[in-house]
Amino acid sequence: MPTAVLTPAELLAHWQGLRRVTRRVIEAFPEDQLYTFSIGGMRPFAVLTAEMLAIGVPMAKQIVTGEVTQFEEKAPATKAELLAKWDEATTELDALYNQIAPERFGETITLFGQYTGTVWSQFFYAIDNENHHRGQGYVYLRALGIEPPPFWDRQ
Amino acid sequence: MPTAVLTPAELLAHWQGLRRVTRRVIEAFPEDQLYTFSIGGMRPFAVLTAEMLAIGVPMAKQIVTGEVTQFEEKAPATKAELLAKWDEATTELDALYNQIAPERFGETITLFGQYTGTVWSQFFYAIDNENHHRGQGYVYLRALGIEPPPFWDRQ
Repeated sequence: MPTAVLTPAELLAHWQGLRRVTRRVIEAFPEDQLYTFSIGGMRPFAVLTAEMLAIGVPMAKQIVTGEVTQFEEKAPATKAELLAKWDEATTELDALYNQIAPERFGETITLFGQYTGTVWSQFFYAIDNENHHRGQGYVYLRALGIEPPPFWDRQ
Repeated sequence: MPTAVLTPAELLAHWQGLRRVTRRVIEAFPEDQLYTFSIGGMRPFAVLTAEMLAIGVPMAKQIVTGEVTQFEEKAPATKAELLAKWDEATTELDALYNQIAPERFGETITLFGQYTGTVWSQFFYAIDNENHHRGQGYVYLRALGIEPPPFWDRQ
């Protein structure tokens, strides 16, 4: 089968590389600032990562099972719990994603009962949104005088 | 030909949708703040968008022509010129990208004389990086008390 652009496995590996960067951004925040620091009335980084957690695995779960999942944005109470939840999501995402047949990426689905688009576009939304909010975390860290992890390092 | 994940045309359309959001973020900045506003020593948004312009079209040009292009980050001097340059890049990107044969997306190339990866991963870097920096522009706008354009609207 000729590959158009990239394979499902390549997309997952790319996303997991970006998710490793997000994890390092969570780690770079001092515990209190992770939950309280804000610029211009925006959500603290813990809440932005809770949004990412509310999208990734629940999205993959609905794609695999067909059951409509709910969007629930809830930040774990501590940095350690947030990192543990992040790692759990890493494993769950791999397990769920690998059950999706390649021909399903062009299928149209309605996610969380309201967002309609192809399976690939749902995953792209999750990735684009994670990049968008992680980039905001970089500004928070810089404002706090903390050097963020390099964006290009995906290992 | 079965589609794996998405087609080259779908990737371009997705990117151009995201580029329309970036254009609206440029538009949302007052002219002076576009060139001067910064948080934590970061580059002003005009310079971040100059980086995007230095990546997108030159990347596509090298992929099409095989000639090594140089990375040159240079912000046009005014907001009007920056927007004009953005629109020019929109047209050039379409014209260049559409000359890339689908089977080339898996080909490994070295960009700007130093970044080695598949053609698809080069485009993904450009898109991820644009999301990352546009997200930073959202923080700048919020800090300036300006409502950014909605991230989900790609029209």
